[in-house]
Amino acid sequence: MPLLVVGSVALDSVETPQETRDDVLGGSAVYFSYAASYFSGVRLVGVVGQDWPEEHTQLLQGRGIDTSGLEIVPDAETFRWRGKYHPNMNDRDTLEVHLNVFETFDPKLPENFMDCQFLFLANGSPEIQMKVLDQVHGPKLVVADTMDLWIEIARDELLQLLTRIDGLVLNDAEAKFLTGDDNLVRAGHKVRELGPKFVVIKKGEHGAMFFSENETYVMPAYPTSDVVDPTGAGDSFGGGMLGYLAEQGNFEPKTLKEAMAYGVVVASFNVEDFSLERMKQVERADLDARLAEYREMLSF
Amino acid sequence: MPLLVVGSVALDSVETPQETRDDVLGGSAVYFSYAASYFSGVRLVGVVGQDWPEEHTQLLQGRGIDTSGLEIVPDAETFRWRGKYHPNMNDRDTLEVHLNVFETFDPKLPENFMDCQFLFLANGSPEIQMKVLDQVHGPKLVVADTMDLWIEIARDELLQLLTRIDGLVLNDAEAKFLTGDDNLVRAGHKVRELGPKFVVIKKGEHGAMFFSENETYVMPAYPTSDVVDPTGAGDSFGGGMLGYLAEQGNFEPKTLKEAMAYGVVVASFNVEDFSLERMKQVERADLDARLAEYREMLSF
Repeated sequence: MPLLVVGSVALDSVETPQETRDDVLGGSAVYFSYAASYFSGVRLVGVVGQDWPEEHTQLLQGRGIDTSGLEIVPDAETFRWRGKYHPNMNDRDTLEVHLNVFETFDPKLPENFMDCQFLFLANGSPEIQMKVLDQVHGPKLVVADTMDLWIEIARDELLQLLTRIDGLVLNDAEAKFLTGDDNLVRAGHKVRELGPKFVVIKKGEHGAMFFSENETYVMPAYPTSDVVDPTGAGDSFGGGMLGYLAEQGNFEPKTLKEAMAYGVVVASFNVEDFSLERMKQVERADLDARLAEYREMLSF
Repeated sequence: MPLLVVGSVALDSVETPQETRDDVLGGSAVYFSYAASYFSGVRLVGVVGQDWPEEHTQLLQGRGIDTSGLEIVPDAETFRWRGKYHPNMNDRDTLEVHLNVFETFDPKLPENFMDCQFLFLANGSPEIQMKVLDQVHGPKLVVADTMDLWIEIARDELLQLLTRIDGLVLNDAEAKFLTGDDNLVRAGHKVRELGPKFVVIKKGEHGAMFFSENETYVMPAYPTSDVVDPTGAGDSFGGGMLGYLAEQGNFEPKTLKEAMAYGVVVASFNVEDFSLERMKQVERADLDARLAEYREMLSF
């Protein structure tokens, strides 16, 4: 089943202890879409400026991603982010954010996107995320991401959003911040009690945790010695996860767990190079091979 | 097969955001012994002062631990440690250390301990750890723990020790410090290249990683909402792991992985209360039940 994603499309500048790359393809909806495209059709809604290189659109289309919802605003610039990673490659500082066209992003779904059954609301304000929700017709699964900024400045809207979605994906610091609980297991369930049927807490290099009414589990990150650029790892995780759910057409507990594992695997490839460079070389068979290794790793 | 452990025996004072406990039973060799006792006979070598409560010895003996190697020094005090946990219950500050009798600890193995086939050198200086090694007759498996202090002040001795042992257990910060590599996967293998056949990196609430020539894997911590006191978690992990290896009488790859899982499970119980309070209520059947849950959690 096709999967609809709405979120940021960006030109990122990334500084790591080894190397710096300027203005490379990035953004939550881009990483998500690319990762999801291994599993299902993807429909992307986002906004860019006149500086957006057409080749990026072609790259996404080359993976079968429907970019007809990618609005290009003339006389404006694309969202830009600059970040610098610490030597541990897990922590980072945001050096610059230029929202540009993303600041007034008011997503309008193309008519043929409105019936999408699987929907991912990538990072954006809860208000915008709800505007998207208002445009879709009875989706089967809605999952959202959020971030500390919205917890801080739009908590009420976020709490409202949480009552309208099936799943929420957020990172460990955000889960603690949202609930005021420093224990991640308790925090995960407290977030779930705010509305979503399930919650996924991303822990960066330490993997991800899953919470539903009857399940609590953790899946470690795939151990990699080759972390070049972690940017987009969380969105790739989400894309792998949701892509697999859309492919399977359900979100039963068993499917959700397999989807989490695919998310881990896609993210592990994504961090092996800047931007989508590593993913460009990856085929579905590579994902399946690493998934088999990962399953074996966790068997005893 | 019986398992010999040599290390610290202590009276700990632990401050958590919820509660403080003074002078409770602790020490690396104590946590290790208790955890290992679910699986195999344990022979403990350590030193205490005249202030040592006899009931602690009885508690250990009650689990079948041979305490004939526990030296009691008259007119001297037991090793004391005081620590304070941060609200995240993973990080802590050491507030006080009084080595007392442990400062001049010069372990002498009882005659009947020297033939032990399975040996764990719990935290202590590499010099002391090697002195123990000199007293055992052709052990089948030797595993050591170490800490940042020894990496800093006794690096040469530690490097010498590493060429004489089969396995090393250390935490993530120590592995980075020892190798100068911030990537844990690379760091683990670099430590292994210094001598041991296998290396285990403990990551606290994030679990543990295993490295051998042909294997790299990670096992997450069992997710618990009830972390009361993490003191001794690492030593309980080691005790569960080595105890199981001693029970099985081998350290084949398959056995090692099962042993890692038991280590995770024992540690998850240990943190549920101060000192050994939680462990006192735990039977082998509880460990097996949680192991089954843990295995299920990691299956997809």
